[in-house]
Amino acid sequence: MSKKQISKLLKASLVVIGNEILSGRTNDKNINFIAKRCDKIGIYLNEVRVIPDDKEYIKQTILELSNKNDYVFTTGGIGPTHDDLTTESIAYAFDVKVEVNEEAIRRLKHHYKKMKVQFNEVRAKMANIPSGAELIDNPVSAAPGFIIKNVYVFPGVPSILQEMFFNIEPKISGNYRVLTKNIKVKAPEGEIALIIKSVQDKYDELTIGSYPYFQPPDIGSNIVLRTLNKVIIQKAFNELVEKFKKAKILYEF
Amino acid sequence: MSKKQISKLLKASLVVIGNEILSGRTNDKNINFIAKRCDKIGIYLNEVRVIPDDKEYIKQTILELSNKNDYVFTTGGIGPTHDDLTTESIAYAFDVKVEVNEEAIRRLKHHYKKMKVQFNEVRAKMANIPSGAELIDNPVSAAPGFIIKNVYVFPGVPSILQEMFFNIEPKISGNYRVLTKNIKVKAPEGEIALIIKSVQDKYDELTIGSYPYFQPPDIGSNIVLRTLNKVIIQKAFNELVEKFKKAKILYEF
Repeated sequence: MSKKQISKLLKASLVVIGNEILSGRTNDKNINFIAKRCDKIGIYLNEVRVIPDDKEYIKQTILELSNKNDYVFTTGGIGPTHDDLTTESIAYAFDVKVEVNEEAIRRLKHHYKKMKVQFNEVRAKMANIPSGAELIDNPVSAAPGFIIKNVYVFPGVPSILQEMFFNIEPKISGNYRVLTKNIKVKAPEGEIALIIKSVQDKYDELTIGSYPYFQPPDIGSNIVLRTLNKVIIQKAFNELVEKFKKAKILYEF
Repeated sequence: MSKKQISKLLKASLVVIGNEILSGRTNDKNINFIAKRCDKIGIYLNEVRVIPDDKEYIKQTILELSNKNDYVFTTGGIGPTHDDLTTESIAYAFDVKVEVNEEAIRRLKHHYKKMKVQFNEVRAKMANIPSGAELIDNPVSAAPGFIIKNVYVFPGVPSILQEMFFNIEPKISGNYRVLTKNIKVKAPEGEIALIIKSVQDKYDELTIGSYPYFQPPDIGSNIVLRTLNKVIIQKAFNELVEKFKKAKILYEF
């Protein structure tokens, strides 16, 4: 895609907050989910960072990325235990207080009453929200996320995060959608590189990516075309298919 | 873990280079692999970044992280297609030329001869290596990675990366190992937060993490103890188990 095309999309970065990802204990499932959803709703995800549960680290990362983007999404660190530092770190980044949010208290009390579970001091911690932040509804387990400036704060548990993210999509979607076409080629990159480059070189509004797969004897490449321009994507796709045919390279799509 | 403990470990960041991860097309498998291996060989992984195939973006990220760490690992972008920009971007970051590496040519020729595949101009691109870099052996598909300054450059295909990473581990391992103990607790965080905090508060050489799982009706928390100190980890573990017992909280380990 050209710089001009990218400038039409909303820009976002994702910050995954969690020692457990960095130690390898937990295999993150949120990066791919959020990346896919962003692509679907017209948001250009330009970077992901995985950082530790550390107040200064969180502050620096949030400030840097908040300045560069339309949105910053964060996952993790908003539970009720001592190692959940995201809420206080983001308040610290924006120099605001953390305070008891009465609406969050109401939602938590309602939820725990329904579940016949005691609402205690520890659970009340999840109603501590940076001053001035807007709540993000949690239809699964009540404890809300929040929005402060352009930073959207989500929990780390994938099933909960996903419901919450779907809920706010109508609010954050962009006006443009990236169009995509895939061609799976049963040839290694070494045999198709010149073909795809020859098509890439004709269209600067188009990005052609080549992603090898390697499970011998199954070796090949996935060719992915991306652009906002629906005329160009069809033209480039047809040209590629024509060239693969001529070179007797097997493909499917 | 205390700052003093962490200072005994080698520090690293990982840079995943690939538009396909950011668009959600590909679900990264390298972050968790490298995180686990680092943990195993005494390297403290302090950050992961996923960034686009973009020369300036790669340069800035590599320079920033190279200055802060003992090692920077990169994955992706060293294949033979037009969208593989990692090699030239890292050379650009360190202000060196990319040149044909004769040893890499030799390995590639040998490999393709053995495979009865033509060694062509496109495949020769994978022998272009930044001047002064040391090769990383690729026992799977021959095309080498490389080491320049403290930056270790790997391909993105997981099965190939993994073999290459195992190979260099003896060379990069640290002298200390993080000790870990896990307790799986069949209670949500809201019921155990005070217990684990009371133990955490006693030991600043220890990090206790709490990671909720949520597949109703199966709800609970994984408690993870991490430290370099084998006396403290056993003491803290025993205390936690004792406290869970007293509170009639079910656990396993």
